Amino acid sequence: MKGFAMKKIGQVGWVEKEVAALGPKDALVRPTAISPCTSDVHTVWAGAIGDRRDMILGHEAVGIVEQVGELVRDFKPGDRVVVPAITPDWDSLEAQAGYSMHSGGMLAGWKFSNFKDGVFAELFHVNDADGNLAHLPDSVDDKTAVMLCDMVPTGFHGVELADIQFGDKVLVIGIGPVGLMAVAGAAIRGASEIYAVGSRPNCIELAKEFGATHIINYRNGSIEDQVAQLTGGKGVDRVVIAGGDNDTFITAIRVLKPGGKIGNVNYLGEGDYVRIPRAEWGCGMSHKQIAGGLMPGGRLRMEKLLALVTSGRIQPGKLVTHEFEGFEHVEEALMLMKDKPKDLIKPIVYVR
Amino acid sequence: MKGFAMKKIGQVGWVEKEVAALGPKDALVRPTAISPCTSDVHTVWAGAIGDRRDMILGHEAVGIVEQVGELVRDFKPGDRVVVPAITPDWDSLEAQAGYSMHSGGMLAGWKFSNFKDGVFAELFHVNDADGNLAHLPDSVDDKTAVMLCDMVPTGFHGVELADIQFGDKVLVIGIGPVGLMAVAGAAIRGASEIYAVGSRPNCIELAKEFGATHIINYRNGSIEDQVAQLTGGKGVDRVVIAGGDNDTFITAIRVLKPGGKIGNVNYLGEGDYVRIPRAEWGCGMSHKQIAGGLMPGGRLRMEKLLALVTSGRIQPGKLVTHEFEGFEHVEEALMLMKDKPKDLIKPIVYVR
Amino acid sequence: MKGFAMKKIGQVGWVEKEVAALGPKDALVRPTAISPCTSDVHTVWAGAIGDRRDMILGHEAVGIVEQVGELVRDFKPGDRVVVPAITPDWDSLEAQAGYSMHSGGMLAGWKFSNFKDGVFAELFHVNDADGNLAHLPDSVDDKTAVMLCDMVPTGFHGVELADIQFGDKVLVIGIGPVGLMAVAGAAIRGASEIYAVGSRPNCIELAKEFGATHIINYRNGSIEDQVAQLTGGKGVDRVVIAGGDNDTFITAIRVLKPGGKIGNVNYLGEGDYVRIPRAEWGCGMSHKQIAGGLMPGGRLRMEKLLALVTSGRIQPGKLVTHEFEGFEHVEEALMLMKDKPKDLIKPIVYVR
Amino acid sequence: MKGFAMKKIGQVGWVEKEVAALGPKDALVRPTAISPCTSDVHTVWAGAIGDRRDMILGHEAVGIVEQVGELVRDFKPGDRVVVPAITPDWDSLEAQAGYSMHSGGMLAGWKFSNFKDGVFAELFHVNDADGNLAHLPDSVDDKTAVMLCDMVPTGFHGVELADIQFGDKVLVIGIGPVGLMAVAGAAIRGASEIYAVGSRPNCIELAKEFGATHIINYRNGSIEDQVAQLTGGKGVDRVVIAGGDNDTFITAIRVLKPGGKIGNVNYLGEGDYVRIPRAEWGCGMSHKQIAGGLMPGGRLRMEKLLALVTSGRIQPGKLVTHEFEGFEHVEEALMLMKDKPKDLIKPIVYVR
Repeated sequence: MKGFAMKKIGQVGWVEKEVAALGPKDALVRPTAISPCTSDVHTVWAGAIGDRRDMILGHEAVGIVEQVGELVRDFKPGDRVVVPAITPDWDSLEAQAGYSMHSGGMLAGWKFSNFKDGVFAELFHVNDADGNLAHLPDSVDDKTAVMLCDMVPTGFHGVELADIQFGDKVLVIGIGPVGLMAVAGAAIRGASEIYAVGSRPNCIELAKEFGATHIINYRNGSIEDQVAQLTGGKGVDRVVIAGGDNDTFITAIRVLKPGGKIGNVNYLGEGDYVRIPRAEWGCGMSHKQIAGGLMPGGRLRMEKLLALVTSGRIQPGKLVTHEFEGFEHVEEALMLMKDKPKDLIKPIVYVR
Repeated sequence: MKGFAMKKIGQVGWVEKEVAALGPKDALVRPTAISPCTSDVHTVWAGAIGDRRDMILGHEAVGIVEQVGELVRDFKPGDRVVVPAITPDWDSLEAQAGYSMHSGGMLAGWKFSNFKDGVFAELFHVNDADGNLAHLPDSVDDKTAVMLCDMVPTGFHGVELADIQFGDKVLVIGIGPVGLMAVAGAAIRGASEIYAVGSRPNCIELAKEFGATHIINYRNGSIEDQVAQLTGGKGVDRVVIAGGDNDTFITAIRVLKPGGKIGNVNYLGEGDYVRIPRAEWGCGMSHKQIAGGLMPGGRLRMEKLLALVTSGRIQPGKLVTHEFEGFEHVEEALMLMKDKPKDLIKPIVYVR
Repeated sequence: MKGFAMKKIGQVGWVEKEVAALGPKDALVRPTAISPCTSDVHTVWAGAIGDRRDMILGHEAVGIVEQVGELVRDFKPGDRVVVPAITPDWDSLEAQAGYSMHSGGMLAGWKFSNFKDGVFAELFHVNDADGNLAHLPDSVDDKTAVMLCDMVPTGFHGVELADIQFGDKVLVIGIGPVGLMAVAGAAIRGASEIYAVGSRPNCIELAKEFGATHIINYRNGSIEDQVAQLTGGKGVDRVVIAGGDNDTFITAIRVLKPGGKIGNVNYLGEGDYVRIPRAEWGCGMSHKQIAGGLMPGGRLRMEKLLALVTSGRIQPGKLVTHEFEGFEHVEEALMLMKDKPKDLIKPIVYVR
Repeated sequence: MKGFAMKKIGQVGWVEKEVAALGPKDALVRPTAISPCTSDVHTVWAGAIGDRRDMILGHEAVGIVEQVGELVRDFKPGDRVVVPAITPDWDSLEAQAGYSMHSGGMLAGWKFSNFKDGVFAELFHVNDADGNLAHLPDSVDDKTAVMLCDMVPTGFHGVELADIQFGDKVLVIGIGPVGLMAVAGAAIRGASEIYAVGSRPNCIELAKEFGATHIINYRNGSIEDQVAQLTGGKGVDRVVIAGGDNDTFITAIRVLKPGGKIGNVNYLGEGDYVRIPRAEWGCGMSHKQIAGGLMPGGRLRMEKLLALVTSGRIQPGKLVTHEFEGFEHVEEALMLMKDKPKDLIKPIVYVR
């Protein structure tokens, strides 16, 4: 079986591997569309999760079920499915506690191209098929569906962590594909004004289409100043962080009202500490609440998001700016994510 | 001062009254637009809150501040304001407990045309002006704003009580003006499919425009059967009740999944008991949760809803089907609410 | 394999059966202590769950693991375990939605002596051993541990459903074993005054020991009157229902403050409807919230409750009033639950 | 009127002042018992809130109502009352949003010896008497009641922010008076094991009496190591921070499970940043949630805590280690808080 892999830190290439062993609750899936993610870039070139040798990359895929274990109830070969980036162990204590994405240890619900081979392969393995696959209706095309693996649930989880309420004014920091979905999520979660921070023209355009009411461009002054101006000095009710770095939290705390909430879904890859500005955090007394977390995975989440697609609430396919036909283009697509040309939001590779 | 009043149960008419005394935190407001509500009809003709003599009717109004008490900080004569139907006592224990609408006793946050004269008057009294008025920006017209007094917050509270989450399938029972706003609220709260129950053509049309994905018409069979068909027998995640009667809860429980939630905002005017079907309620074990409550009032709520209007998320002015110029038409408008002609959703009377 | 069974509605007796087949994630457990429950009585003599033939009874047991499937990670033959009455399918959509007790359908997380043979057997079968068993430390005796299967988690779930906050005044209706644990749970959840409704002397004594501050005896007048007197007419913040019948909800609604919450864990075995008094429910507007649900099962819940035992917060072994040595006494123990002699709270049968 | 004041940063002394003006909703209270707080020490000697001249100190007092404004409904001269340290403006937007302690601006619900004269005076002023005073029953002595002003609600708020659930293992960092009440609060909120961090013998003794199951003494190694040992390397579910400094959050994040929560009630007086360790925080993805906030004040909170006292759930009077008779001893009591002798937990001064 062929796959496109991280050969070691800083190097990618094709590998030939055995197909993974199939447990009684597992499935093997043949991808029909895959999408590289900034995480893949971090994994390979920043060594974000440490060294890996010949590990197949990728965690965003839709495909066709090839084979299932004997205890799988609801899926059979030939079924069209979407596979979440996070595939928890549902009987773990962490899942029982409501944090399935940390099943087996912090972040360990993330298995693809982390603890096992990813989805940039002719076939890939899914643990707990009944709990982690979702049937894909004919009405949803691959381009849209593959955005449900990670971009939509991650962006929407930022909205959930920030706990947006009717009429809230919301700052979304970062309008790459995840931030754009955070904008879309905030808009259908009841936000009134949405201030989207970014500067790339096609991202700005899509942010507006997805519900941003105002754009904050770094070039026009600090985020703090622009938020102050937009809110008459009062600050925002909620912040979703979908970009930036450790110090983005300093900005978030500064622009937030007391009692406000921060939902972070930006993976912080570098540095020792996130810093919280003591005084603006009310000396620890401000009720400015800070939450950050990996997206929830699993089947139910996929089904809920699919329902938002089929009912026309969201159009995540609009994130896709670059489409490739043929598995052999996966490297090209990945390099796009690495090089981030100006007109890129998200590339996709069809494998069929 | 002239006002349009309930003279006794079953009788309305004009009255001449003294202007209410102004406490140090109160305001007097001169309405510029008022709207009669089904509650006014119940109050007069069904005696829903008991007998009242010469009590001025109405609890939906926008207007201009005429006078304020000496402790009022943020409002002054000439300010354009929207006034919520519910005007709590904010220092009450109930408000401190998070239930301001019950300040001073169950439902006692509802004061207009209940414990004191209402807004169908040349001038009306507002307790705690700083806590209960909201500034109305020029960009929001009276037609839209007067829907924020009761229709929008009541419909949206149904959505809040039902605790709608991303991707939920939601049944909204009743698509009068409150139910229509529940549909709109569900759509911007993250619902996927919204099944709206009703039969009047213009309500159906507006329900679809506000986000209903499917219409359930009583004439096409029982709600239970239609929901079963739409959901493949699985039922809905949430129900908002904005119409019907005591037995509507039987339907709601039947169509709800275990773990689902009912948010009721329909005022139940008659009968001794709401009945919950024991078996379908899982013998008390189903986690089908039942909540019902009066809308939250106060200034913050008004400001949050205004922000949804000015950011273009909701267009509640579309509820208004009948417009009258001149205070003298208030009776005519009220009788419309009583007679409910086929093309009525909501009437409004401009007073200027 | 021998077991004590419901032979048909109204008849019990010993049966000889094959040991259940063991799936790869399952376990077989040999009980060391079992306890009959009122549910067993309802199952047999009231036909509460319909007819069953030769179905082994019982859902409260601690024991020793006899055998495990090849995918079980954390348990091995010889391990001492406590087994919750509710053993969910953790990869189900319902579990992913947070309602594992309804996995596979309403109440279907309850499998023992419902969908499969129960624990009154030489060996019994547990689905998903890693997700549903908990290791029992030597410091916890069987008498205490067997109360963790159903009595403690059910009583505590009533407290959770009622959402008790610091200083709340709480009414607990019913002080059988579940109600007594609701009293204990309310006391360590922050309740101030706890009004326990009951009349049996040893239950009253234990209720006081577990934290009840006042006893409401049916013989001294209505619950409504007594609560009114105790609270100066203000009512209680929370009600936990652990006894009574459909009409107990009428009382609960009447004594509850607006904004209050009812947590029901009483299995309602008869009648068509639970009735909610319309007027006292504020015409559907009171925010008196009604929730009822089956206890959450699974391993994590057992571990959390065990930690409350080992840290000395609760002493559920005190519920046990009657102890039997030898499996052959299970019928005797069950008949005690049926006949409910005055000095009975809970019987236990040691099998060793 | 005489008062004991901060004369400037670093200097205290007696001042003679006019009695504050009484608004229509206000009250004047004559204290019968007062207690100095570490905050008073920070205010004077660390200049924590900036310079203040001749500002009367103190925010913990019980007393007798001397005079009330004409709109006060529920209190009259002669009434015995407890006064919370935080006295919000209940009609503010912040209070309506659920964050009354920030009414009028971040932390601005804290008025005594911050924005106005404090309670170390012959008479002190209380805004919104109906919303901020609570009647003190005869059965509660001054020693106990004065602990309800700040020590109990602050410690308990840490427990609320950490959102402790049944069976949780909880680390409480700091066992001064606030931390001790956090221990007591955790115990009656459902914690199983409570690890209390401290080293002073009488604090350790009281921590155990209040519910700590284990003591972590800085002298026996790092908190991280000791928690790891106590929890088998798994970490705790919850952390309440009631002592330490900015870097205490580093420890808290390290010992917390994914999905865990931190509730901070420690006033962070110095330094520019609180630091969150990036890797242990799961690169922003760990769901280790961070909340910190000023105690909720107001009447309802006082009444709820009083109910916990009268029902015997808490004995906060045990915090008082030093008692003085006569107002003239307030300086002595304050210097005790400054010098923190080994046997001190909390001093009190009776004024009668």
